[in-house]
Amino acid sequence: MKKIAVIGMGIIGGSICGSLTKAGYKVDGFDKNEASLQFAITAGYIQAKGRNIADYDTVFIAVPPKATMQYLDTGAFKKGALVCDICGVKEIMEKTVYSKPRTYRYLGIHPMAGKETSGISSATPELFKNANLIITRNDKTEDSAVFEALEYAKAMGFGKIVECTAKEHDEKIALTSQLAHIVSNAYVKSPQVQNCDGFTGGSFQDMTRIAGVDERIWTELYDCNRVHILNELNGLIEHLSIYRDALEKEDSEGLSNALKEGRLIRQTIKRDND
Amino acid sequence: MKKIAVIGMGIIGGSICGSLTKAGYKVDGFDKNEASLQFAITAGYIQAKGRNIADYDTVFIAVPPKATMQYLDTGAFKKGALVCDICGVKEIMEKTVYSKPRTYRYLGIHPMAGKETSGISSATPELFKNANLIITRNDKTEDSAVFEALEYAKAMGFGKIVECTAKEHDEKIALTSQLAHIVSNAYVKSPQVQNCDGFTGGSFQDMTRIAGVDERIWTELYDCNRVHILNELNGLIEHLSIYRDALEKEDSEGLSNALKEGRLIRQTIKRDND
Repeated sequence: MKKIAVIGMGIIGGSICGSLTKAGYKVDGFDKNEASLQFAITAGYIQAKGRNIADYDTVFIAVPPKATMQYLDTGAFKKGALVCDICGVKEIMEKTVYSKPRTYRYLGIHPMAGKETSGISSATPELFKNANLIITRNDKTEDSAVFEALEYAKAMGFGKIVECTAKEHDEKIALTSQLAHIVSNAYVKSPQVQNCDGFTGGSFQDMTRIAGVDERIWTELYDCNRVHILNELNGLIEHLSIYRDALEKEDSEGLSNALKEGRLIRQTIKRDND
Repeated sequence: MKKIAVIGMGIIGGSICGSLTKAGYKVDGFDKNEASLQFAITAGYIQAKGRNIADYDTVFIAVPPKATMQYLDTGAFKKGALVCDICGVKEIMEKTVYSKPRTYRYLGIHPMAGKETSGISSATPELFKNANLIITRNDKTEDSAVFEALEYAKAMGFGKIVECTAKEHDEKIALTSQLAHIVSNAYVKSPQVQNCDGFTGGSFQDMTRIAGVDERIWTELYDCNRVHILNELNGLIEHLSIYRDALEKEDSEGLSNALKEGRLIRQTIKRDND
């Protein structure tokens, strides 16, 4: 049986361990934080603390972007090992990987799952159940890497699995994930946000759920996907300004048209929960 | 037993009917749309189509803002009747009601419940289960009106019930509901939004759920709460611009500080689902 290692015992790394272990795989964990490793062992997510990364046939790197790049660039992986990063940015990962010849097989994957909390204590073997998984590939991607990853993905419980280029990933994720976290983080900055207890419904819950981003991870993500997230953020500010201008000018027709435009687009997009 | 009428067989009006009927009350419905009334009768939400509004001891007005104002101003309600509007704006309702002496007892209520769909077919007797209800009151509000409304509210299944002034309501709702609908409606206008199937997780679902607002209703709501929603919208655009400027200047520290500020606020606010 293939030996699997997961680097990073956070919510995603821990959930990879937990779901693979539950599916019958044997997984070891790597983390600088001894308590997180101990948690993963006690929870039954991993077999043991990993010692030498060169011992593993498959490695999932589940740490923040900069640390991921460092592993991809200098990690002493076994020859032929499948090495997957789970980062929310992919172009920069490919740039790092392909900056020189590698003896490992690289594959970018991005589980579209998470919670508004983080750390190993938020991990669960069920985190990826029916979630989307994005696999990024290019003309250097080995078919065997994708094939193996798909097997793991099924074992982890993923629902829809899509493949695309790193660029396409980074463009889309800027909208579907990264912009959302900025918006939610900004949303709670209204002076009215305090003492809203009892004054909220589902829309406020939706807008504020993911506001509490870990700025250490997310600043790295945004820095690594600067151009695409800037495009999205500028676009959103421009669009919001249209409603604002209409309100300022008491232009009900303009406001109505802006709302109608959004409603019609909303009808054309496929959302997983619709 | 008190005779209850609900004007407006939409999602909210229909759910008021359905929940009160389920709790043992007898409710008649008013609507210009015969098919909606028929739906409400067939679904068992109402007993019958109402004929004369002056026959009813309690009236819930569940139509868009302008039509609500018209009912409040010119409705031939029974003397002493409890008349509740369910609108998302309250200052303008009070202004309408108190523009002249009334023989009915007015009370503003705002159920913090809804769905991303509308109309009588989206109504359900369970819509208000554990939802928040806001009651607006002022120095003219009769205690008996609040007392009776609280009984109905319990029967409808509401969870937390808060009382406040119309101004406080309008200020808070501008953030907790009205801004959220603009943000969601604007969010889907990114060119990247198409073909995102498979590229989304919970955050995208959250941001786009309520994008499909009915522009006829929401334009009226925004027009009626212009100053407060403008405050919120300007505030959000200003806050978003801080992240944007930091990204543009490649100012990682500024970006991190902005994210940290939001995270710390998020920890201080009470969200119903936390």
